[in-house]
Amino acid sequence: MKARVTVTLKSGVLDPQGQAIVGSLTSLGFEGINGVRQGKVFDVNLAETDPDKAKALLNDMCEKLLANTVIENYAVELLD
Amino acid sequence: MKARVTVTLKSGVLDPQGQAIVGSLTSLGFEGINGVRQGKVFDVNLAETDPDKAKALLNDMCEKLLANTVIENYAVELLD
Repeated sequence: MKARVTVTLKSGVLDPQGQAIVGSLTSLGFEGINGVRQGKVFDVNLAETDPDKAKALLNDMCEKLLANTVIENYAVELLD
Repeated sequence: MKARVTVTLKSGVLDPQGQAIVGSLTSLGFEGINGVRQGKVFDVNLAETDPDKAKALLNDMCEKLLANTVIENYAVELLD
């Protein structure tokens, strides 16, 4: 089973990388960039075929490794 | 206008980070992990309100900065 995990910073958490990207885009001549926040995406390929078990497994992976739950949110999406 | 840009490695491109994550997950006791590929996600806040112009702007940002189009694919999604 294929799944996508998206990990993003919680609102209110400072994102220096996102700010640096705004600066770079502006220096490249882009206008009207009100903000950029960068996150991570993980495309995971699991042997598990049961959707509920796969979701539980992925949530557990996020809690233990893929996300820093103090400052990050995560969303799990099963792709097939 | 809010949009999400997702940048992922093209298939066939080696992903050492993804492989490292598989190793870490396995050492944490997770089983049945057939593969992990890591990418980036950018939540962009634009002053532009016209959807077509916003998409063109975002594609241009990807081509010039957000994605390395030699080894990465990008997908643009308008959120509102």
